[in-house]
Amino acid sequence: MTTGSTLLLVLDLAGVFAFALNGALTAVRVTRIDIVGVVTLGMTTALGGGIIRDIIIDDLPPATFSDWRYLAVAAVGSLLAFFGSKLEPLSKPITVFDALGLSLFAVTGAAKALDFGLGPMQAVILGTITGVGGGTVRDVLIGRVPVVLSSELYAIPAMVAATVIVVCMSLDVPKLPAALGAATLCFVIRMIGVRYGLNAPGPRGFDGPDPPEKRASS
Amino acid sequence: MTTGSTLLLVLDLAGVFAFALNGALTAVRVTRIDIVGVVTLGMTTALGGGIIRDIIIDDLPPATFSDWRYLAVAAVGSLLAFFGSKLEPLSKPITVFDALGLSLFAVTGAAKALDFGLGPMQAVILGTITGVGGGTVRDVLIGRVPVVLSSELYAIPAMVAATVIVVCMSLDVPKLPAALGAATLCFVIRMIGVRYGLNAPGPRGFDGPDPPEKRASS
Amino acid sequence: MTTGSTLLLVLDLAGVFAFALNGALTAVRVTRIDIVGVVTLGMTTALGGGIIRDIIIDDLPPATFSDWRYLAVAAVGSLLAFFGSKLEPLSKPITVFDALGLSLFAVTGAAKALDFGLGPMQAVILGTITGVGGGTVRDVLIGRVPVVLSSELYAIPAMVAATVIVVCMSLDVPKLPAALGAATLCFVIRMIGVRYGLNAPGPRGFDGPDPPEKRASS
Repeated sequence: MTTGSTLLLVLDLAGVFAFALNGALTAVRVTRIDIVGVVTLGMTTALGGGIIRDIIIDDLPPATFSDWRYLAVAAVGSLLAFFGSKLEPLSKPITVFDALGLSLFAVTGAAKALDFGLGPMQAVILGTITGVGGGTVRDVLIGRVPVVLSSELYAIPAMVAATVIVVCMSLDVPKLPAALGAATLCFVIRMIGVRYGLNAPGPRGFDGPDPPEKRASS
Repeated sequence: MTTGSTLLLVLDLAGVFAFALNGALTAVRVTRIDIVGVVTLGMTTALGGGIIRDIIIDDLPPATFSDWRYLAVAAVGSLLAFFGSKLEPLSKPITVFDALGLSLFAVTGAAKALDFGLGPMQAVILGTITGVGGGTVRDVLIGRVPVVLSSELYAIPAMVAATVIVVCMSLDVPKLPAALGAATLCFVIRMIGVRYGLNAPGPRGFDGPDPPEKRASS
Repeated sequence: MTTGSTLLLVLDLAGVFAFALNGALTAVRVTRIDIVGVVTLGMTTALGGGIIRDIIIDDLPPATFSDWRYLAVAAVGSLLAFFGSKLEPLSKPITVFDALGLSLFAVTGAAKALDFGLGPMQAVILGTITGVGGGTVRDVLIGRVPVVLSSELYAIPAMVAATVIVVCMSLDVPKLPAALGAATLCFVIRMIGVRYGLNAPGPRGFDGPDPPEKRASS
């Protein structure tokens, strides 16, 4: 295993972990706290983006199924979130973990696409899909309009990060600083969007079915 | 074709048939009785889990498209359910057929994953995904929160069956009794869950959009 | 590149363009007019059916990612719809573009399936899936029951077109007239269905969550 692919693996597993936490915490909020549903949504969110990426670049079976660490990290992250959620309030970390997973997967998705011979434009799009994929699967499963459609600054930062890594790799910038820089950039843009409400949900008509937790209180 | 693969095929087609009946009967309940919608939902439910399985293990085109019997069984099951539903009330068989499809697909998914060289942990997860896949696609299409998220005893029995078949195959237990035993175990656990309400839908806030048939009557 | 595959490419890109316009215009109606969401839904609608087709026939990476024109046409179509929608009312063209994409993809899906060695029944089903796939992904993402389930004359015309092209190719009818004839037939049947309300949404209970634009006005 080369240094490059080790780096990719580490970032990929970090993304899996972040999205597992996010998906599981989301499940805790929208459902009664039932461990099976929580772990299912955590693992789906964590692994969805990478599976879509690997299907499209024809790396089958997906890394999720050829390397046991993916399943293990996703399961551990989901269980940690399940038990941790009993101690702490949740709303802030959900957004942070989502932004982390988005950033890491945008980078690994674009880098892996280049490694598999896709063109630069395709690598940018695939990085974006990898980044937004897990959250989209999560939102579809719980009946929410996906954040990628409702929030302006969700696809954009993923695309920026994917573009940065594609440009850096074509310029032979060392992979480690390029990957960390691109992921950080995505994370910062996304968190600025969250902070200043640039992901405002838009007019009432748009959001589709309300998140169940809101309905229950009305 | 070896005995093992014939057994797998028979169980797989039985699962397709059960899920076709389930999907079509579900369509009859949630929609006006329109043959195209019913057959579409029946075939999608019947074939969804197996297609996902075959994509992940890289057996493409999926069995659904390389062996005409899959399409034929799915179509016949959907049509039978459409015409049969005009004679009988439906609520009980819907659950039974769902449990049957879940049990059979959990077994065939795990066994096929082992045949294609995936590890034991991966085979268990893939069996579970194959089992719950068709119902998840069905629920997403009709706008319901998937039963795998809302019911405690849905993923668990599928996982148990997949684990049993993986252990049996590693111990060289003959395939026929192993497969039937594992599927029966899953079916019984699931039906116990249904019978004693262990798949209770949880607090009001959770279910997401009500199933349309409930709303219509309220 | 042979004449046959050039024809397939042209029809495929025309389908991508039609579905990009449709998806983007749909996004404009159901959401606040935000360029990122509009382009995302436009590209997803445009590319969804073809990606599903290419995964199933094992032509990976999908044409979408191996030929830059797919991404370019989808992006241009989505942007045109975004800016065009500021000038014109939308309801009519949405339906027309959807019917166009359906017709073109049903034909290219079935023809490509035959080229990749699938049987005639499989090619018909795959053509239908390719045709209805993009719209189904679109509807799932915005939380609508897919038109393929709610409208009688949506899957049927796609199936008719796919059957016509499969029969013509087995009889060595020249591809250009066969493809145009089959697509035209599908388009006409679909538009007749729309015109005479054969896609009536059925009883109130069926539709699941209302399309957001209706709710907003009620």
